[in-house]
This record gives sequence, structure tokens and C-alpha cells, in this order.
Amino acid sequence: MPFIEPKVLKGFRDFLPLQELTRRSMIEKIENSFRSFGFVPIDTPALEYAEILLGKGGGETEKQIYRFTDQGGRDVALRFDLTVPFARFTAEHRAGLILPFKRYHIAKVWRGENTQRGRYREFTQCDFDIVGSDSVAADFEILLIMYKTLHILCNDFTENNNITGSNTISIRINHRGLFNRFLASLDIGEKSAEILRQVDKLAKTGRDAVQEQIEQIIGKDKSNKILDYISLGQNDGFDTVLEKLKEAAGEDNDIEHLRKLRSFMKDAGVADSFFLDPSITRGLDYYTGIVYETFLNKLPAIGSVCSGGRYDNLTGVYSKEQVPGVGSSIGLDRLQAALEELGQINQHCGYADAAIICTEAENAGKAQKAAECFRKQGISCEVFFESKKITQQFMLAEKKGIPWVIIPDYGTERFTLRNIGSREDRENIDLEEAVSLIKQ
Amino acid sequence: MPFIEPKVLKGFRDFLPLQELTRRSMIEKIENSFRSFGFVPIDTPALEYAEILLGKGGGETEKQIYRFTDQGGRDVALRFDLTVPFARFTAEHRAGLILPFKRYHIAKVWRGENTQRGRYREFTQCDFDIVGSDSVAADFEILLIMYKTLHILCNDFTENNNITGSNTISIRINHRGLFNRFLASLDIGEKSAEILRQVDKLAKTGRDAVQEQIEQIIGKDKSNKILDYISLGQNDGFDTVLEKLKEAAGEDNDIEHLRKLRSFMKDAGVADSFFLDPSITRGLDYYTGIVYETFLNKLPAIGSVCSGGRYDNLTGVYSKEQVPGVGSSIGLDRLQAALEELGQINQHCGYADAAIICTEAENAGKAQKAAECFRKQGISCEVFFESKKITQQFMLAEKKGIPWVIIPDYGTERFTLRNIGSREDRENIDLEEAVSLIKQ
Repeated sequence: MPFIEPKVLKGFRDFLPLQELTRRSMIEKIENSFRSFGFVPIDTPALEYAEILLGKGGGETEKQIYRFTDQGGRDVALRFDLTVPFARFTAEHRAGLILPFKRYHIAKVWRGENTQRGRYREFTQCDFDIVGSDSVAADFEILLIMYKTLHILCNDFTENNNITGSNTISIRINHRGLFNRFLASLDIGEKSAEILRQVDKLAKTGRDAVQEQIEQIIGKDKSNKILDYISLGQNDGFDTVLEKLKEAAGEDNDIEHLRKLRSFMKDAGVADSFFLDPSITRGLDYYTGIVYETFLNKLPAIGSVCSGGRYDNLTGVYSKEQVPGVGSSIGLDRLQAALEELGQINQHCGYADAAIICTEAENAGKAQKAAECFRKQGISCEVFFESKKITQQFMLAEKKGIPWVIIPDYGTERFTLRNIGSREDRENIDLEEAVSLIKQ
Repeated sequence: MPFIEPKVLKGFRDFLPLQELTRRSMIEKIENSFRSFGFVPIDTPALEYAEILLGKGGGETEKQIYRFTDQGGRDVALRFDLTVPFARFTAEHRAGLILPFKRYHIAKVWRGENTQRGRYREFTQCDFDIVGSDSVAADFEILLIMYKTLHILCNDFTENNNITGSNTISIRINHRGLFNRFLASLDIGEKSAEILRQVDKLAKTGRDAVQEQIEQIIGKDKSNKILDYISLGQNDGFDTVLEKLKEAAGEDNDIEHLRKLRSFMKDAGVADSFFLDPSITRGLDYYTGIVYETFLNKLPAIGSVCSGGRYDNLTGVYSKEQVPGVGSSIGLDRLQAALEELGQINQHCGYADAAIICTEAENAGKAQKAAECFRKQGISCEVFFESKKITQQFMLAEKKGIPWVIIPDYGTERFTLRNIGSREDRENIDLEEAVSLIKQ
């Protein structure tokens, strides 16, 4: 029988140990941040009825979704995001949920889209949403979690848990209600949705391309007005743009909403990093209130690393009860790629804190007993199996990024420690000394 | 448009917050244990070429695997275990792996099998393997990790990280080489594989059913011999059974292997909980050395919660290089069900450690600022959004299992704390006092 070539599907990836350790430490930071706000995790199946996932249906999704017929003849599909399963989850478990319900969900999703520029067919989303509240306070909490979590991931966090560096990220906010009202004033009717999608491409395709597209749809005059509107205060502060928007659109509830949001930012001491940007629209239909995207100031070209918005009716496809909510999602893969490019990631370089040398093969039981003494003190400790030359074992430790090698004397229960980096030895010390040396 | 009924596929499950918190805390314990031994995580795609996953092919797998044609016309499938992807991974990345390679992989797998008695179509496996070593020390390390991790999960662990309670689990070990040699002595040729599978059903279908099946395959005489062999020392200690096996099969390398394994157990101080059981075979073809299953002594009927064995040639389907290994897998779903049934799980009962009351809607920014003071001290702190009556907010905290409610005085920066359980208040205290009260 010939060999099968070992390879993964295009757009799919293996994660090798050091990559996976980095991913896990990022996820741990994200989870800890979410949990600190009282958000709780849920999980849903990777596979669902296609009907559930496709809902009202829709062009791009229908093309990209992995859909097939299962052994029982069911029409099933792999989830392509975490929002639709959450809508189904909320409708199904509505009676058991305590509102407002603050949940997060970190999991993989699958889209058979063209693979390019860091786009994968399997990738991880980190969603966090508050459903059952339409208050500005809920909008603000999601923004605050974005602000805090992104700062933590970018290592802009002091030992006292204070956020430093106001110049790390930019969270760019707009209000769909306001924008829709402006579009309505142009009397372009049903073409609004298409305009929204075109404006959403601004960062990707550039101003000229967007202007050309919009001109083709609604003509030069109205196109110019739209371009003027979305360019309002590109580089101005939040308050200045808010004033301009009020002038352009007139005072109303949405302006008042944004004003409150801004005052919460100031009260909480996080006014930096937030911008009001009329060009942010998010392409998706279901947003009805504020929408936002997050950019890394040192690498804006990679695109938004955390986006979301407010929606009026999460569960509309599944039940008549209206559940409003607000949420956001961190694109872990894109963020990891960006942080790696910026050298801002704490790379894991070691498999363990220490390793016990193999003196003789028959000492394997004693070696594990000695290793347990270190593990109990929170030191991860590998045990080497083969009684090769000691220099070979030092080299193995070096390859694995293990900083300390422990040579036990099973008779005296004392240890000699070799520091792999400095090549210095500390001979004949007891457990306590050895532990404190490694922990330094 | 009519509503779509919100429901999951048969055999698939949602995890609600408190269930998911429990799962995550189990996974965290498992990971910490693996990491303490110097094991490192990897990840592989959920979807692979069907050819890769099916390898040599095989009856049950082929029937159960979720397989379909993707948008690009590729024959793809969802992984049904973590061993086959690991074999592909090892063959593909062989040049970059440092041997012996100790990895773990905790992830979901999918099997379209009949759903019954706690069997699901989507479930989580926790695999840990050492490849590139054929030493007894590697076998022992896997067994030690099973021993330690299962004790940790069963809460048989003191504050000083010592394992207590030798009567929690039974790890039942056999040696496939030894068993194969015994079967060979019966001269039953190719029927050995079928006999192995029949013996594997012993715990499930009972002795009489197995005997009947085996009789039909190789007749009464040989069937009796097999039943005698697998019944050797059902309730005897490891050393006694080892002696009996030596008498029955004769001294050889496999006996010597088991003897060494036993001496390592004694040297490491973990001799309890391990049994030698000639009836353990594991159904799968690829095992060549020791095989094992783990039972909870208080609930043996639920079946093995952690099983595995030694294999000679992990990557045989993909390359000519032989890579030997040994590994095991914790069945998280079954274990969780068992521990819940035994009341041995630390149920999460709260969404957060504390909540900040909503005094007035416009205080949302200040409330978050106050909450941050607690979060910085490691206290998870929700902020309530709606300025309902204070008693309603206390009830909300109670529903969410939040033990402390914080009522801030934004003028004085002092707090009143309500203990939701005792309904006692501590009035007008400063941050430090409040933090230490909550942390108690």
C-alpha cells in the first residue's frame, strides 16, 4: 500500500507547540478579562441544522458555508460565526437565562472563502455580548472591555494593573441610526444598504474607488455629499466630531446617546483611544445602534482586530420576542499575526522550567518522585528517559528551551543544578535551595 | 416568513454558563497537570482530507465519520479522534519535532454514532502522548500522569499537593505482546484480532456473552482457555498476577517490561491504584505493548474514563519511518458525567465575586471606574445597568450567585457592602476594607 501524503487542507493550519502556547496565553488573558467583568462562557455545537445557520439566507454566507447531508439525511453545516449560534441559543434557552445576559464564547468557525492575506478557512473568534439591555451603559461596558482587553494583549499594562500608553489602539465608533437618518435625508430609498456596504470598503479599497462605486449607484451630487459626511473630522477629537455630526444631522436621540457614551468614557478615565468616525458602517444588516472597529496604531493596515455593534433584535429569526443586545468580537488570528509582526508578543521559548537528568534507566521511578517535589512547588519539570551522555542531555534541554537541568543524588536526596544559559553549576544543594534558584 | 425552530442536532449539546464553567475548570486542571510534566499543546484542523483520516480504512470509522465534498470538490471529513491527526502531524512536521516529543491535545471530535447512555456525536478528548521513545520510563510517565491527573480531578488532592485516597481510581493494565503470545500458543491464527475485540466487550456485555461469542469463533476448548487466562487474578495485587502470568506465558521481555514498570511505581510511591488485568485488550489494532483503562471505584459501571497504550508505528500510513509511542486519552464528557453523579464536582455557582449597584443611570462611567478598583485586586465585578429598586438588584445578584453587592458613594469614594447570603451590610468602608471583606 502506498503512503498517503501527510498534508492539511488549503486555508487550514496546524499549530506547533510554541505557537499553540502563545495562542493559549492570549486566550487566557482574554478570558480573564471577560470574567473580571462578570461575563460567563457558553459553548454551542460546531455542527448545526443548515436552516438554523443560514436563517434569512444571504449571498456571501451561502457561498462560504461548509454544508452537507449527514448520515441521517439531515441538511447540516459548520458554523461560520458565533453570532448566529448565539441567537439560536438565546431563543432556545430564553426561559433559563437571567437578563441582562453577559456571555462570551471563544471558538473556531469555518468559512470556505478565498485564502489570502492572512485569511484562513478555520479561525478563532472571541465574541462577547450583552443581551437584554438597551442602555447606553451596556454599550459603554462592551467598549470598555475592548479597550481594556486590547491593552492587556498589547502588553500596555503595568504590574499594578494600570493601563499605560494611550497611543496603542484606536477604537473608531459610529452610530448606524445617525448614518441611516443622513442617508434617508438624501432620499435614496432602498439603495441605503448598498451604500453602507460600499462605505464599509473604504479602508480596504480607498476613497477614490468607493466614490466611483457610489457615483454609479446614486450619481455624483449625492455621492459627494456622502463622501463629505464620512470624512467629517477624520483627525479630530471625539467631542469635535460629535459637534459636527450634530450640525450635519440635527440634535436627536442618537446624538444624545453618543454624548452620554462620551461622558461615561470621561468618568471612567478612559477617554483616550476612542474616536468618532462617520465612515465606520460595518457591512452587516443587523446593526441598528453604535458600531465600532479597533485598529492597532502601529499597524492600521492589517484592519480591524475587534469589531461589533448594537442590534435590536438578535432572535428575530427564531421567535417573536425582541431581544436587543450589543457585542463585539476579537479576531484572534489577525491580532496574533499583527502582534507577531510588531514584536509585541511574549513568545514562549521553553517547554518546561526544569528537567531531571537520566542517570540510569532503572532510576525512572525515583526521577519522577524527585520531579514531583518540584512540580508541587509550581515548577514544570520534565523527566529525561535515556541515559545518554550528560552533555547530550544538556543539549536536549537547550533545544527545548528548558533553563535548568537537575541532577539528583538519590542517596543523599540532594541536587546539582546546571543553568543551561550560563553553563554554571550549583552543586550539592537541598530541595528548598534548588526550588528558590529555579524560581528566581 | 415563519419562525425557524431553535434546536440543536441530536447527539449535540449546548453548554450553559455554569456547565461550561465546570468544563473549563476541569480542562484547566488537566492542562496544568500535563504542563507540569513538560508536555506541550498542539492543535490541528477539525476538517482534513478524508483519505488522511480514514488511512487504512475500517468498518466502524467509515460508517461514523462526517464526510463530504467541499466547495472545491475535495473529499473532506471531520476528525473522529485526535490520534489519527496526530499521526499525520508527526509525519508532516517530523523534521521540526524534538524527540522524544511529549504533546497534549484537548479538542472536540465528531462521530455520527448512535446516541445512547451518555454517548454524544460531538465530544471532547484530552490526549497526551510521548512519541520517539520505546523506554519503560515513557510508559511509566504516561501512567503516572493518568494517576495524578485523575486524582486531581476527583479532588483527592490536599492543599500541599499530596495525593490522598488510594481507593479512588483503578488503572487496569495488560500487555498486548503477552496476550498475543498467549493467543498464538492456541494456534488460532488470523482469528486473534476478532478474539481481542470480543474480550474488549467483557465489561460491557458480561462474561457469558463473551464466552458464547468466542466459542462460536474457535470452539469450546480454546474458549475455555481464553476465559481462564483473562480471569487470572481478577482481584489479586499486581505482583501476584504478574507471577501468575509468568507461569502461564513463560518469562520473556514483556514480563520483564511489566516488572520494571512495577518497580518504577514503587520507587515513585504510587504503587496503589494500579492493577494487572489480563482481560484488558483495547479493541484497536495499533496497540503493541501495554494497554490500560481507568475506572472510578465508586462508579465502575460508567466504563473507562482514561485509556490508551503503546504503539510501535504511529506514522506508518504516511511514511516509512517508524515512530514508536505511548499515550492515553481522558474522556472528558464521561468523566464529567460520572463526577456529577458522584457529587464530586466543584460546581460553579456564581457569575462573579461582586456586583456594583446601579444608583442612577448616568453613573455608569463612575460605576465602571469603581469596579476597576476591585477587578485590579483580582475580584471579578459585574456592573448593574438599571436603576431599579435596590431590593430588585439584590435579587438579581442572588439569581446570579453573586455573593457581594457594592453600593458606592461616588462623593466620598467609600462603599457599603451587602452580603447577599447573610443579608448583612457593612457601611461606609474604604476600598482596602471592602477588598479584604470580599476576599475572605
